[in-house]
Amino acid sequence: MKESLIAEFRSIVGKENVLTSSEALKAYSYDGTTNWIREPDVVVFPTTASQVSAVLKIANKEKIPVTPRGGGTNVSGGSVPWLGGVALVMTKMNKIVRIDKENLTATVEPGVVLQDLTLRIAKDRLFFPPDPQSFLGATLGGIISENGGGPACVKYGVTKQYILGIEVVLPTGEIVNLGGRTLKNVVGYDLLHIFISAEGTLGVITKAELKLLPIPPVKKTIMAVYDDVAAAGESVYRVLENGVIPDKIELLDNWVINRIEEMMPIGLPKDADAVLLFECDGISEAVAKESEQIAETTKKYGAREVRIAKDDEDAAKYWMARKAGFAAVYGKAKTVFAEDVTVPRGKIPDLINKCKELAKKYDVEIIVLGHAGDGNLHPAILTDINNKDHYDRSVKAMHEIIEGAVELGGVLSGEHGIGLEKQKFFDKVTDPVVVNMMKGIKSLLDPNNIMNPGKIWD
Amino acid sequence: MKESLIAEFRSIVGKENVLTSSEALKAYSYDGTTNWIREPDVVVFPTTASQVSAVLKIANKEKIPVTPRGGGTNVSGGSVPWLGGVALVMTKMNKIVRIDKENLTATVEPGVVLQDLTLRIAKDRLFFPPDPQSFLGATLGGIISENGGGPACVKYGVTKQYILGIEVVLPTGEIVNLGGRTLKNVVGYDLLHIFISAEGTLGVITKAELKLLPIPPVKKTIMAVYDDVAAAGESVYRVLENGVIPDKIELLDNWVINRIEEMMPIGLPKDADAVLLFECDGISEAVAKESEQIAETTKKYGAREVRIAKDDEDAAKYWMARKAGFAAVYGKAKTVFAEDVTVPRGKIPDLINKCKELAKKYDVEIIVLGHAGDGNLHPAILTDINNKDHYDRSVKAMHEIIEGAVELGGVLSGEHGIGLEKQKFFDKVTDPVVVNMMKGIKSLLDPNNIMNPGKIWD
Repeated sequence: MKESLIAEFRSIVGKENVLTSSEALKAYSYDGTTNWIREPDVVVFPTTASQVSAVLKIANKEKIPVTPRGGGTNVSGGSVPWLGGVALVMTKMNKIVRIDKENLTATVEPGVVLQDLTLRIAKDRLFFPPDPQSFLGATLGGIISENGGGPACVKYGVTKQYILGIEVVLPTGEIVNLGGRTLKNVVGYDLLHIFISAEGTLGVITKAELKLLPIPPVKKTIMAVYDDVAAAGESVYRVLENGVIPDKIELLDNWVINRIEEMMPIGLPKDADAVLLFECDGISEAVAKESEQIAETTKKYGAREVRIAKDDEDAAKYWMARKAGFAAVYGKAKTVFAEDVTVPRGKIPDLINKCKELAKKYDVEIIVLGHAGDGNLHPAILTDINNKDHYDRSVKAMHEIIEGAVELGGVLSGEHGIGLEKQKFFDKVTDPVVVNMMKGIKSLLDPNNIMNPGKIWD
Repeated sequence: MKESLIAEFRSIVGKENVLTSSEALKAYSYDGTTNWIREPDVVVFPTTASQVSAVLKIANKEKIPVTPRGGGTNVSGGSVPWLGGVALVMTKMNKIVRIDKENLTATVEPGVVLQDLTLRIAKDRLFFPPDPQSFLGATLGGIISENGGGPACVKYGVTKQYILGIEVVLPTGEIVNLGGRTLKNVVGYDLLHIFISAEGTLGVITKAELKLLPIPPVKKTIMAVYDDVAAAGESVYRVLENGVIPDKIELLDNWVINRIEEMMPIGLPKDADAVLLFECDGISEAVAKESEQIAETTKKYGAREVRIAKDDEDAAKYWMARKAGFAAVYGKAKTVFAEDVTVPRGKIPDLINKCKELAKKYDVEIIVLGHAGDGNLHPAILTDINNKDHYDRSVKAMHEIIEGAVELGGVLSGEHGIGLEKQKFFDKVTDPVVVNMMKGIKSLLDPNNIMNPGKIWD
């Protein structure tokens, strides 16, 4: 990149907000995984929307790639500056601008970390329901751009259902507001949703209006233990079918249970094929009744044992275990494929059985865990890119998991996005007419293809 | 329209499904109001997506306007064939294709009437939360195309939150599927939402996958009576702020209360300035607790009296009254302006006071009623287009109500859409850059501007 351009960026955002050292370029070259590494030419930290606008105007004129980035916790390559250019790091735009208790909304800048928001609004007994498990580092701009999910989506839905409006800087530098501050809003086409889950390829979100909810007074955690992971899968939809909507339903298989017990023994049943973790929330009477119903239903459909957490501390242990289970998957091998497939809930047992078959067929271990309550599983395969034979078999198995999910009426990504990771599958499973519509919108809004180029499709 | 084209339509959908009689053209010339009347050249009833595709291919080639239409219950002119051409009436595509109890979803054709769906899925103890009050005639295709709302949106949100996927025929005749059958789905741009609330200007929805919920076991209705309508407005957000989310919060002012008592006396307080009707749903213990909390909060913030419906029959009377209240507004004058403004909930008292001021300023009666729980009010002005002086004053007052709502951080339409009614306001309040983005998407998908032309913008 020309030194004169870097000087222009310095004059826009200030000298201290432009980095070009090799350490800085390295630091912003990868995402929450290290599966893809590509250095930007320059790292820019804007602090206002008009600075973002000025940077984009230059980039658009000079046709320089711009990859927006929040906490960099994403796992499908979305924030990796794949074609170099500017890494536009939004973490300094991290103000909680307003909490409107009367309207149950918050106005935030994109660099606000989810956990910081959670702690701040808890003082007003409010919460933001989407709960991607990267909440300690993930920022709202990224969560919106990836339409983040998490365990609590079973009851509360995904990020897009809690975004009322955004301020966004278009690739051409115009600053526009889409949506608004009200839930009901039918004023022309719903452009807001085009930017949610666009993975930063259409513009840079510089402010967002979030819908909040009152914190439920009581939560209760229930664990159901199974000798057959597919039976656990069936219990998921039997509980829902029976009229109970817990806020979370998570599945951990035998492998995950045992890794957790190695790391932090909390008395999980090491011989179980799987456990389901449920959480109910609401007023205490409702939660008590729902817990009973969950215990009944899960026993009826094959749980050999049901435990109800005796207090909040006990419950916290289970959820810590679940979080550790996820971490264990990533820590246990040189190369990890952690899928993000999602199927209609009734098809969870089929998907689990498919994983079992493929494990045998390709002689690899396939771990099953994830947000079973909304059909969103993260089957994982541990392999090593340097062990060609094992790696190739793992790749084949993973491909068939994705194809299997799509055949079952599901999708190839529930909450992680396409990014770099899923491009070849995206092309394979998406109707070319639909891809062309998406590409048409991309050309319309970003004629010079400067925003996060190289992502979603090639 | 050339007779040869009509013959082509007949060969596609069958002779019995093409109407050209003057009665038929008249019957499909207006919407749920009679504010806009324009006859189509031909009325076509497709029964399959491929028939829709064949009709659109011809229309696209011949550049003939096509206005899709369901039950025709909309109130902003959306389904009026403003530039003639084809009225594409979807009411014969009215099959409920599948009810998936395991996945809590239903697959429906666009002509299914909401009430028919409600009755059918109630057999499986399921419901579709959005509840536009035109449910006896409104069809799912139209509800999706207008992103319909209703009273229950306070707790459950609007239509778009319950649409997982659609099959849509593009103006060029291609049949595509957008979204899918799962809640979590991040596979490229969210094109699904562009079609939701596009008012039929981008394509024809031929199938939809709906998210359903289990029917809550118990409901309870609470009425709070006020001597000051603005205090009622304040109670709305005080109740929510206090952590209770009823499924409905409706506001009726003194005029509406008295019209109801004339039509069907049920003992509403005729001297009250306003009443709020709340409905809570859930398990009985939760509903009992929430009702108490509502009674406490409303009394604290100015309710002079609170009544709790003693049983379901009693509750039904209140809700029948509310429905009659709406009907009364339309029945009481030759010309009715019924607004659809929406403001952040904390601004409801300001909006109500603004209506009071404008009533004085222009010497017209402004009735206030609507879905106060989500800030969506329908202030109404009764006038007569033949009384020029009164009509002009009414128009001015209505314009200022809309401007006032926008100034308060709200929007000009919460659930009725722009259609023909709000075009001039749409242009006035919408950023031209945003309008251009919308027009760009329109040109991209409908290059010959055949789909419902003349709507949203001019």
